[in-house]
Amino acid sequence: MTNLDHGDPGDAPTVPPPLTEIVNANRPSAAEEARTAAASTNMGTLATLTKDGDPWASFVTYGLVGGAPVLCVSHMAEHGRNLARDPRASIAIVAPGPQSDPLASTRITLAGHVERPEGEELAAAREAHLAAVPAARIYIDFSDFSLWVLRVQRVRWVGGYGRMDSATAEAYAEALPDPITPSAGRAIAHLNDDHADALVAMAQKLGGFPDATAATCVGADRYGLDLDVTTPRGRAMTRAGFSSPLNSSDELRSATVGLTQQARQV
Amino acid sequence: MTNLDHGDPGDAPTVPPPLTEIVNANRPSAAEEARTAAASTNMGTLATLTKDGDPWASFVTYGLVGGAPVLCVSHMAEHGRNLARDPRASIAIVAPGPQSDPLASTRITLAGHVERPEGEELAAAREAHLAAVPAARIYIDFSDFSLWVLRVQRVRWVGGYGRMDSATAEAYAEALPDPITPSAGRAIAHLNDDHADALVAMAQKLGGFPDATAATCVGADRYGLDLDVTTPRGRAMTRAGFSSPLNSSDELRSATVGLTQQARQV
Repeated sequence: MTNLDHGDPGDAPTVPPPLTEIVNANRPSAAEEARTAAASTNMGTLATLTKDGDPWASFVTYGLVGGAPVLCVSHMAEHGRNLARDPRASIAIVAPGPQSDPLASTRITLAGHVERPEGEELAAAREAHLAAVPAARIYIDFSDFSLWVLRVQRVRWVGGYGRMDSATAEAYAEALPDPITPSAGRAIAHLNDDHADALVAMAQKLGGFPDATAATCVGADRYGLDLDVTTPRGRAMTRAGFSSPLNSSDELRSATVGLTQQARQV
Repeated sequence: MTNLDHGDPGDAPTVPPPLTEIVNANRPSAAEEARTAAASTNMGTLATLTKDGDPWASFVTYGLVGGAPVLCVSHMAEHGRNLARDPRASIAIVAPGPQSDPLASTRITLAGHVERPEGEELAAAREAHLAAVPAARIYIDFSDFSLWVLRVQRVRWVGGYGRMDSATAEAYAEALPDPITPSAGRAIAHLNDDHADALVAMAQKLGGFPDATAATCVGADRYGLDLDVTTPRGRAMTRAGFSSPLNSSDELRSATVGLTQQARQV
């Protein structure tokens, strides 16, 4: 992960560093984060080129074949005409989330060029688009609509403030969407509502902040929990990592119980 | 409004036409719709050009000066470097709404080129961005962040299925955001929950569908109500227009009472 050094005029909030080692800081790779974000919605914004070469942003829906977005657009629409003229395109996707601050949201850009799928890929692309966008059954067979698959060549992931990285096309293609993140909302709320003490213990004993006075879980994935920690030195983000990666959201409850026991035994 | 004729393979749902004249079909212009959509959120997706001239889509926040989006981006970010190299840009904005079908949502594209505001405009742009994005106070004065104003030269509005039009830059600049639409959600729910009979009467007597068996209000603006009408011939959209345009959401209740009385007197 790249942490960039902004040109701070001197009054930005300082983030206290951990005082002890984070026991298990494992987290999803940028490629995994991007695949998870791509799978989290069916809406994005496409950037294409107009006939003058100007950048044109437009709302689209998509399905996924592997990690490749499948678009279904009319060639009567400007973006449809643009793609037919110049296949270069990128799509920006914002993962739905509870953040009140939009810049805390997870978002990705997938860039490359589009191609019309053929043969078996056409059937798979059609099925993937309809699975993600059921309303498309009304127009997917209209003669002015075409399916396009975005061949992803560049991947950029931004996970909120100061969390960002690029992934290679190969890593993105091989990564899998996280099995925990999409359905973790209720479990996170339960942890924060009913197990605040356990979260503080995790921050103190596993997350490197022995001076934590409060901790809020702000995310969960197959590798662990993201904790927003309050200390007398300020607020920081840290990590409580599971002993092994989870494969199903069914495993989240026992894994957080395990983290709690681990934190209280240290 | 342009209704495009899709290449229907023959099995698309048919939309029944009105049987009598719509009494008052007035509605916001495409320029007004676009200004309302731009004012409805602080999040959009920017399309810029990479150094290779490829289209790059990326999430941004914005404020508005007049109808011009004001961005605050770091030149360490790819879109910031892109804008500094080539000022051509467009922004796609999706208006928040209750639609479960994403293609029923209202969205716009504003295209043109960015400029760094100076003098009085810089102060106004800074204030507008901070008013829309309070969290920007943390970084707006960092030396790597710049404000950019998008000089809007092209406006494209899509109001859902089959509702779309372009607006000139002049019409967009002169239009005002709708005073009713942003706060109409509760009033619309109340109409649908408690005044279903009145909505049917409006559809029958004012909306051109004397055979309406049900009607749901799906939108409100200063010129009237959008009604989704059920008839034995199928479903259609129609309009119940206020006797004069409203200037404040305080006027919505009496205007809908007026429409109800008008429908029952015809």
